[in-house]
Amino acid sequence: MSSTTVGDLTELEQARLDFQQQLLAAGLLIETAVPGLYGRSGEFEDIVDGIDRVVVAAGPGAAATRLRFPPVFPRTSFERTDYIASFPHLTGAVTTFAGTNAEHAELLAARARGEAWDSWLEPADTVLVSAACHPAYARYTGTLRDGGELLDVYGYCFRHEPAVDPARMQAFRMHEFVCLGTADAAEQHRDSWIGRGLDVLDSLGLDATAVPANDPFFGRAGRMLAANQRHENLKTELTVRLYGDLDEGTAVVSCNCHRDHFGDTFGITTADGEVAHSACVGFGMERIALAMLRTHGTAVDTWPTSVRNRMFP
Amino acid sequence: MSSTTVGDLTELEQARLDFQQQLLAAGLLIETAVPGLYGRSGEFEDIVDGIDRVVVAAGPGAAATRLRFPPVFPRTSFERTDYIASFPHLTGAVTTFAGTNAEHAELLAARARGEAWDSWLEPADTVLVSAACHPAYARYTGTLRDGGELLDVYGYCFRHEPAVDPARMQAFRMHEFVCLGTADAAEQHRDSWIGRGLDVLDSLGLDATAVPANDPFFGRAGRMLAANQRHENLKTELTVRLYGDLDEGTAVVSCNCHRDHFGDTFGITTADGEVAHSACVGFGMERIALAMLRTHGTAVDTWPTSVRNRMFP
Repeated sequence: MSSTTVGDLTELEQARLDFQQQLLAAGLLIETAVPGLYGRSGEFEDIVDGIDRVVVAAGPGAAATRLRFPPVFPRTSFERTDYIASFPHLTGAVTTFAGTNAEHAELLAARARGEAWDSWLEPADTVLVSAACHPAYARYTGTLRDGGELLDVYGYCFRHEPAVDPARMQAFRMHEFVCLGTADAAEQHRDSWIGRGLDVLDSLGLDATAVPANDPFFGRAGRMLAANQRHENLKTELTVRLYGDLDEGTAVVSCNCHRDHFGDTFGITTADGEVAHSACVGFGMERIALAMLRTHGTAVDTWPTSVRNRMFP
Repeated sequence: MSSTTVGDLTELEQARLDFQQQLLAAGLLIETAVPGLYGRSGEFEDIVDGIDRVVVAAGPGAAATRLRFPPVFPRTSFERTDYIASFPHLTGAVTTFAGTNAEHAELLAARARGEAWDSWLEPADTVLVSAACHPAYARYTGTLRDGGELLDVYGYCFRHEPAVDPARMQAFRMHEFVCLGTADAAEQHRDSWIGRGLDVLDSLGLDATAVPANDPFFGRAGRMLAANQRHENLKTELTVRLYGDLDEGTAVVSCNCHRDHFGDTFGITTADGEVAHSACVGFGMERIALAMLRTHGTAVDTWPTSVRNRMFP
């Protein structure tokens, strides 16, 4: 189906473009000069906040430590995630100007000539956050308390992937519940959140499916990593069909076993002295909002009463 | 006073360090490897959200268009703000990897040798947001409707300025009310928000003062820009003394006349065909939270009842 073309676009591309244009026309998203980067209207934010109330109500509540991080985090922590090895193409590193008056004058002269001025910048000590949980691990370097840690993390993430599909944004929010502890505890956390995540989506009136998945690892070596991740059943995505049968559906929630990856690279051990395992469930807030707009329509006041009552009690 | 030293630190430096350590010990802020970059506890976020309720209650409500932007915005818009000319040292530009498999292998080999790998990155089309209102202007290129626009913008800002003082963060939130319209309307917006801002701070139990101010323009040429800004009375800051008489106080709210700067660079005109003027009031959410923690103490349940009732109705 998806190879059928309408003009120069496939049906799928046309469906994505139509949805994007519909959201812009409704004023829910605000176009910018960069593909995949949008402003949000107050109404769109209300939808996201309403979804978050439902997510939080299904979450661990006071059993979890709430942590919030800015959209940038230390380069030293970014290094430990190994993200630059697996997803260099999605990375956003930060540069700044740290030169002299004379060098600034050179920068401005180049800019006045219409030339690029980035060569006068140098790496800053921060990188954009790619997954909401990444800035959290550095805090737990050392030995975990008995029973491990349960974290509630919510924040903006950046991934450099320009796209027309409004469900593929360069900047979006992810609400995560993260388990740090034994291998068993981490695996159980991931497994339990497949069902709990489906319940959350069902209560929002979304028809979601749990499917085995893999991350978009970069390049040739990445294809093997992706195959392994699938083979070892480390990632389950909860998908909703935004574009009918034109594609396999859009992942709106992701349930992940990290095994001992972060425990190892951040030097985190359990109370028993083992390298800590971790797992997380991540709710893609913009994607859930888009799935709801696609499912229930762009007029929120016509959404099912039961759904609105949960979101806006 | 501020030149008196305790050990190697001035009294002011010591007071800032003590406050930072107090916030970290209380678990309100979470230390990272980067000076001026902090995680926030759930309790700190509750304080910020409580302050925001008071700010919003004093704001224009439905008279304003609510816009929310991610923490990065298009480089083309950043160029139009002229920020790189005035504040290059605070800028955060984004770079990413867009190379081949072979180039990624080179990057990883350099990284494995402990070398820098930034030279394999290239500029992305985004820049970190420096002031919450900056991403908003591009939307209004063209002719404003009669009466202009009143905007409510809230988001994370980035400024590369590593510091021990917890009130000088590299990433922080700013809630702005922005007027786009005639010179008179803009000036009146700014002027009215000096009093309204002081009222907000007073209702939070803060002892604030309105003072003429200037932005930290870069370099030798910047000193003249700063002097002009002060001379022409374009910036008024509402300051609270976090460190007694050791310094002049910390700006927690900023009321700014931009004159026709953004109207000119973004090509915005009024319904009458004049270049649009703009003005904004920006509430520094983390700074107000810190001023409250400094004024009322770190135990929120002991804060004045009237203040808590406003924040957590």
